[in-house]
Amino acid sequence: MIDHTDRSINFIWTLIAGFLVMFMQAGFALVETGMCRAKNVAHTMSMNFLVYALGMIGFFICGFAFMMGGINGAAGGLSGPASLGLDDPSLLNHMLYLTVAGKHWGLLGYSGFFLSGSSLSAGSLVLFLYMMVFMDTTATIPTGALAERWRFKSFTIFSLCVGGFIYSVYGCWMWGGGWLAALGINAGLGHGAVDYAGSSVVHLQGGVLALVLAKLIGPRIGKYDPEGFPRPIFGHHMPMVMFGTFLLAFGWFGFNAGSSLSGMTDRIGLIAVNTMLASGASTVAATLVIWKIYGKPDPSMMCNGMLGGLVAITAPCAFISPCAAFFIGIVAGLITVWSVLFFERNHVDDPVGAISVLWGILAVGLFANGTYGDGYNKVAGPVTGLFYGDHSFKQLLAQIIAAAVCIAWNIVVGGLVFQLIGRLIGSNRVSAQVEVAGLDIPEMGAPGYPEFVSHVSSESIASSDISSAR
Amino acid sequence: MIDHTDRSINFIWTLIAGFLVMFMQAGFALVETGMCRAKNVAHTMSMNFLVYALGMIGFFICGFAFMMGGINGAAGGLSGPASLGLDDPSLLNHMLYLTVAGKHWGLLGYSGFFLSGSSLSAGSLVLFLYMMVFMDTTATIPTGALAERWRFKSFTIFSLCVGGFIYSVYGCWMWGGGWLAALGINAGLGHGAVDYAGSSVVHLQGGVLALVLAKLIGPRIGKYDPEGFPRPIFGHHMPMVMFGTFLLAFGWFGFNAGSSLSGMTDRIGLIAVNTMLASGASTVAATLVIWKIYGKPDPSMMCNGMLGGLVAITAPCAFISPCAAFFIGIVAGLITVWSVLFFERNHVDDPVGAISVLWGILAVGLFANGTYGDGYNKVAGPVTGLFYGDHSFKQLLAQIIAAAVCIAWNIVVGGLVFQLIGRLIGSNRVSAQVEVAGLDIPEMGAPGYPEFVSHVSSESIASSDISSAR
Amino acid sequence: MIDHTDRSINFIWTLIAGFLVMFMQAGFALVETGMCRAKNVAHTMSMNFLVYALGMIGFFICGFAFMMGGINGAAGGLSGPASLGLDDPSLLNHMLYLTVAGKHWGLLGYSGFFLSGSSLSAGSLVLFLYMMVFMDTTATIPTGALAERWRFKSFTIFSLCVGGFIYSVYGCWMWGGGWLAALGINAGLGHGAVDYAGSSVVHLQGGVLALVLAKLIGPRIGKYDPEGFPRPIFGHHMPMVMFGTFLLAFGWFGFNAGSSLSGMTDRIGLIAVNTMLASGASTVAATLVIWKIYGKPDPSMMCNGMLGGLVAITAPCAFISPCAAFFIGIVAGLITVWSVLFFERNHVDDPVGAISVLWGILAVGLFANGTYGDGYNKVAGPVTGLFYGDHSFKQLLAQIIAAAVCIAWNIVVGGLVFQLIGRLIGSNRVSAQVEVAGLDIPEMGAPGYPEFVSHVSSESIASSDISSAR
Repeated sequence: MIDHTDRSINFIWTLIAGFLVMFMQAGFALVETGMCRAKNVAHTMSMNFLVYALGMIGFFICGFAFMMGGINGAAGGLSGPASLGLDDPSLLNHMLYLTVAGKHWGLLGYSGFFLSGSSLSAGSLVLFLYMMVFMDTTATIPTGALAERWRFKSFTIFSLCVGGFIYSVYGCWMWGGGWLAALGINAGLGHGAVDYAGSSVVHLQGGVLALVLAKLIGPRIGKYDPEGFPRPIFGHHMPMVMFGTFLLAFGWFGFNAGSSLSGMTDRIGLIAVNTMLASGASTVAATLVIWKIYGKPDPSMMCNGMLGGLVAITAPCAFISPCAAFFIGIVAGLITVWSVLFFERNHVDDPVGAISVLWGILAVGLFANGTYGDGYNKVAGPVTGLFYGDHSFKQLLAQIIAAAVCIAWNIVVGGLVFQLIGRLIGSNRVSAQVEVAGLDIPEMGAPGYPEFVSHVSSESIASSDISSAR
Repeated sequence: MIDHTDRSINFIWTLIAGFLVMFMQAGFALVETGMCRAKNVAHTMSMNFLVYALGMIGFFICGFAFMMGGINGAAGGLSGPASLGLDDPSLLNHMLYLTVAGKHWGLLGYSGFFLSGSSLSAGSLVLFLYMMVFMDTTATIPTGALAERWRFKSFTIFSLCVGGFIYSVYGCWMWGGGWLAALGINAGLGHGAVDYAGSSVVHLQGGVLALVLAKLIGPRIGKYDPEGFPRPIFGHHMPMVMFGTFLLAFGWFGFNAGSSLSGMTDRIGLIAVNTMLASGASTVAATLVIWKIYGKPDPSMMCNGMLGGLVAITAPCAFISPCAAFFIGIVAGLITVWSVLFFERNHVDDPVGAISVLWGILAVGLFANGTYGDGYNKVAGPVTGLFYGDHSFKQLLAQIIAAAVCIAWNIVVGGLVFQLIGRLIGSNRVSAQVEVAGLDIPEMGAPGYPEFVSHVSSESIASSDISSAR
Repeated sequence: MIDHTDRSINFIWTLIAGFLVMFMQAGFALVETGMCRAKNVAHTMSMNFLVYALGMIGFFICGFAFMMGGINGAAGGLSGPASLGLDDPSLLNHMLYLTVAGKHWGLLGYSGFFLSGSSLSAGSLVLFLYMMVFMDTTATIPTGALAERWRFKSFTIFSLCVGGFIYSVYGCWMWGGGWLAALGINAGLGHGAVDYAGSSVVHLQGGVLALVLAKLIGPRIGKYDPEGFPRPIFGHHMPMVMFGTFLLAFGWFGFNAGSSLSGMTDRIGLIAVNTMLASGASTVAATLVIWKIYGKPDPSMMCNGMLGGLVAITAPCAFISPCAAFFIGIVAGLITVWSVLFFERNHVDDPVGAISVLWGILAVGLFANGTYGDGYNKVAGPVTGLFYGDHSFKQLLAQIIAAAVCIAWNIVVGGLVFQLIGRLIGSNRVSAQVEVAGLDIPEMGAPGYPEFVSHVSSESIASSDISSAR
């Protein structure tokens, strides 16, 4: 059992990091609201605001229990985070297993519903707070991809489901002692799937949900001309976007360095530095590339570049050297520019950079330098990638499996839930009339800026755009 | 005496929490400025900006000495916060007492003026910082309620008085070892008045001051039609309001969890989780109710709902279970919707949700679950509310007394000071002409947005509105 | 060697403080963007955004190695910060010395390039993060002074140079064990040059660079009338400026109190309180003075006042009493008002308050009260200023030398680099046509606010203004 003083250090580190991650919600709100048009400002901001409360309720009721309720499960489970005093077999110890040939593959936790029951302790509450704000990041990513056309009622129900089970089930498999984490001890694939700070659990899940839902709901009216070529839709408030992005970069220190769940490990300095360096490198890489291609250092691409670097570094941040972080950042910047252009051409409106996330998850299997991770997922020895001696590709394979499962789960379950909601309430999308007029008054009952005069009048959109909308 | 390492943990926890609370000032500034009209932006923002400096000066000169100067007072005083090393009888030990039948009732501290004198230590300074930013929250609440009509000169003097003594005297009674805290040991009322993180000391004081001053200064011109029915005045910038609210929720983690004045207590995780859950529950409750009533999920009501939950959880956050926090949040959300509508109908323009605060203070006496608080205010045994065994209603009675005293003190003293200032400088309110034209140029000499074109021209307000104004 | 628990406390304190300082970048972005006109919003914000990444890359490649690479240098060097476990002679121990009469004067460090090599440790990485965000503050100050006319390409190259060497060389002399720090042990001047938290290293360097470059690039078109009298140019968004300023004051707690590099020292409470008090006093002082002079409590001057107090307190914050901090703040507020008016009259457009910084550096030599600093720069005994017994003026002399060297270095090297870049790319300034039309579309390819209608059309600027521009 950890010493009281040391555990207190871990508590305050994890809590403060959690507060920073919670604040990232405001960053997403600003980025997404700044990127939309003035007529949809109240709607977009309200989605980002309410998703925090909705996801939280889902996670409080059952999401946390599903995700972390079996972290100390008796049958072959992995030990919970000792740094928070959770390595106590009486806590969070109910896991539903699939047992094949004597090996236990964890499917779903089931203790800690409503944060009640004997399994809760001070450490469980700290863990809940930290896990809750992570979930919230996933839940808010679709609000950006579906902005300016998502019905508020559909959004409300979907967000509750993200917190309740969509996020949490995969979260259990990766972080709650589930079967992906057990790929190491059960199948000999390195340390099993490793995601230090949530590239897959948080960002890939959010990104895939965003992609699937954006594809299902279709692009915004006016985004493509009759020949199908994309038309630029400027965000209405560039300072809001850039400030929001910077706020995200600030909160990301909590996201990555806090994922140690411990202030007592020497790694926290390295993690924070790697996070910073990857974000800086990707920002500059994306800026220079777009400057070269289009002749201007586009501000939105600066922001996309920074976010691409941040999501890419999230999985490997603790296992690599600063130079590798710098290199991962450069590649992430290039991928970001490419993917923004690729998705736009392929009629997915606003993808939130899901490809950079994939890069991050795989980077663990490439760049993990064998200096850290002894005991991770109960496997002895440090996490090691292809370039540092994993010539059997085993860690890389575990990473690929985890990414594929994450994509499949969210496409199937996220898509299904979304379609069901659409059936239930009639439609997931507002009417074309509402979309053209702006969602603020019809959906929210309040304008975003009742006083500022706008250049863009709703009449200026040709009726052909409306009639051609789905 | 506390161990140096452990005390350092308490210092950094309290300081970082204090920084977060200080940052809440920016949240209030954004909420209040976003809720006002564009013509009053510079004035509203400047009040919120300068109040930080003005209140600070008042608190530095004498407010801190009045409030905390007797926390270790020799005659029957309560011990200071041992977690900061303040349980040293040579520090902050001057209290003016009223002695009745051998019982000492603390009225006012008197050491630590200008943070000088022998009574100061490292711990005192940490306490000063934390108490100063709490006071600042109280001082800034009236700026919202009186926005768009308060003369800047009147605001300046009043804010100095809040920091200097209005806030501090009641603060002493509750937190500085004064007579309300002593209701437990002196009169056997449970643990005496208990306010873990400032529902009464900070939010009720601020709310009552806001109500009294708003009533005295009268509603904004144009707020009520000739028949006395309220007219909606939209805030000019909804994203500013919602971002500001979220910033407040971020800072509130420092407000509540930092009130332990200790990073060494296991409770900090519970407090943070309770704070989060109450805010989420109240946000959703308020949103659903207004959605039901008006047919739209009004964004301002989302914000009010979140703030209502946060103020309500502030008193009980350390003494209750997560499920109780969730329930308190739901009730707070309902109360918030009701109170916003009630006050508007009763010609108090902008009440800042004072009723939710009352709910929070009383909730301690209802839901305190008897697992925490041994030694609080020098009374042995845990704090216990009505629903958990306090069948003599004693804790609840102490809470009711504290709330009533808080209301009375701020109505009488706050109202008196405000009226005196009005006499001294001629008027507390700008002229009707200035109010209609907007306060920015006449009061501050600078417009908030010199370039943006506004829909609302000052001419559009009928002259009858001006002539009917008080 | 420091105990693991205590070192962890120092790590988390320094890291969290570093995160806050990083967030200050967003504060600068908001202040500078709010102060510019709407047509230059994307350009100004993008400079503030990209400078973070650019400076970081320069500092990663070589800046950190130059500045801190010799902090443990073998030949007569000063010991590194023991609080982070850096007092290990194998770490960061390469310094280029000038040896005169047996005394070693450090010129430049040379280990830690690309954060690689054997000299790096967990503590080095924490130090890197903290030093990087400090450098970033310096790098961003010129973007404000040159806003609305600086070519983005020129800005890009210059910012890389600030992070790479302009900032770092002086940084080495003061903080990296260089010759200014050694004025104490080598020349008997008190403790050598003392700059607790960067008044000279960060703010004076940034301020002097801003002044020199602003003078070289010339004022904005339209800033002076044909007779040479300044014309007011309103910032386009006052709430953005005021929120940004407050965000800076929030981050400044990390800036000053984090400069202890230790959460284990009792001083952190004093430092935070002194920082707060000086900012409050200077805000009120500047506001009252401008209110007296112009009849209105100008909101921009409130902001300038607060920033003036913050830069002034940065050097002395750890060595003085709260009352001295309060006094230093008042003087800083007065100096700020005077210097804004002075520079404007002398055709330096936007000086960012460099004079207040000077006041802070000298204040150490006046008010240091002899209670702290034993062992600072390897000199025994506390740091003591003129008013507390340094009647030989030695500490004050060291401070004056440090300030003079800082000014000279940045004028010469900063000016030279800027002129070289101008030669290299043709011009440091955009064309008069671009400047009048706004830099957003021509330089960045994107408008800041594509929808809001502006009062100010570019046609309204007389062509005579353009032809009279340099």
